[in-house]
Amino acid sequence: MASEPEKVVPPVEAPVAEPAPPPSTTRPTDYFAVADVVLRLLVFASALVSVVVMSTSKETEMLPNPRPAKFTQSPALIYFVAALSVAGFFSLITTLGSLYSLIKPGCCAKIISHFIVIDVLLLGIVASATGAAGSVTYVGLKGNTYVGWGKVCTMYGKFCRYLGASIGVSLFASVMLVLLVLLSVYSLSKKIPK
Amino acid sequence: MASEPEKVVPPVEAPVAEPAPPPSTTRPTDYFAVADVVLRLLVFASALVSVVVMSTSKETEMLPNPRPAKFTQSPALIYFVAALSVAGFFSLITTLGSLYSLIKPGCCAKIISHFIVIDVLLLGIVASATGAAGSVTYVGLKGNTYVGWGKVCTMYGKFCRYLGASIGVSLFASVMLVLLVLLSVYSLSKKIPK
Repeated sequence: MASEPEKVVPPVEAPVAEPAPPPSTTRPTDYFAVADVVLRLLVFASALVSVVVMSTSKETEMLPNPRPAKFTQSPALIYFVAALSVAGFFSLITTLGSLYSLIKPGCCAKIISHFIVIDVLLLGIVASATGAAGSVTYVGLKGNTYVGWGKVCTMYGKFCRYLGASIGVSLFASVMLVLLVLLSVYSLSKKIPK
Repeated sequence: MASEPEKVVPPVEAPVAEPAPPPSTTRPTDYFAVADVVLRLLVFASALVSVVVMSTSKETEMLPNPRPAKFTQSPALIYFVAALSVAGFFSLITTLGSLYSLIKPGCCAKIISHFIVIDVLLLGIVASATGAAGSVTYVGLKGNTYVGWGKVCTMYGKFCRYLGASIGVSLFASVMLVLLVLLSVYSLSKKIPK
């Protein structure tokens, strides 16, 4: 008797061990670190742009005799350039440090954790410089009839546009520094056990 | 045979369980909380003084005809008063919250932990207001010969002294806010297990 063809039982596949998901603690930390680097880069870039624009804002009016307008003619604008230069310098250093710790995790967590002190101080410096330069530029734009300060921007339009752009960029840098501090605080509070 | 006197083995004292030291986490937290309340009170007090001094800085010169000098004549000083009023209001609220959590520990730790967001924003606002008012007052004090802005403080000496005092106090408030943010960060980082 011809035996019935045996049903070929398909071999039960051994359950393939799924690749273990990476520990869930590393992933958010990486996002934080990437956001940290990006924010620091933005602060550096905006501080650099701000200083360059302010430094190149020279304009010379020829009538009736040549009178140049430069940022060095106002102490507030000199403070602005100094403060943004300091901010650019330190944000470059912290960007490099943050980037290095992103490439080699755990190399220098102790040092990185102290960057927030620099960020808070830079926030105070950049915000005050933005306020100082902004108020002087506003007086130059609108004048002040009570104390007889005339408008400057009617004569030096290009100079004032440079100032305005520079101050706008430094305002952006201040906002980025606020976000950077809050990101660091949030990242710290994530590490606290419930 | 007389047995040798056995050496009396001194009874091994059972190791007395030392009284467990109080959990070390509570004590520093209390110090932090006290420092937090004190710093917030200082911010509130200095913001209040700053606004009051600035608001009462009116001075009227009688020669040749009455011309009053008030802070409302400068947009930068108006921004200063608005910013310091906001800072005083929020620092009063956070002082009360912080004080309440000091009296009843653990009542509202979740809310208190978000005060740092307010502090960082207030730092940016107060620092920029200090810079804005400071630069306008500096122009009033020294003038600017390049653009023909005359000195104001030669005529309105008392007004300028009030402005200077108010700006100095708000600079103090900015420094207190920096310390407050750093204290919060330090207090957070203390809670992270090694």
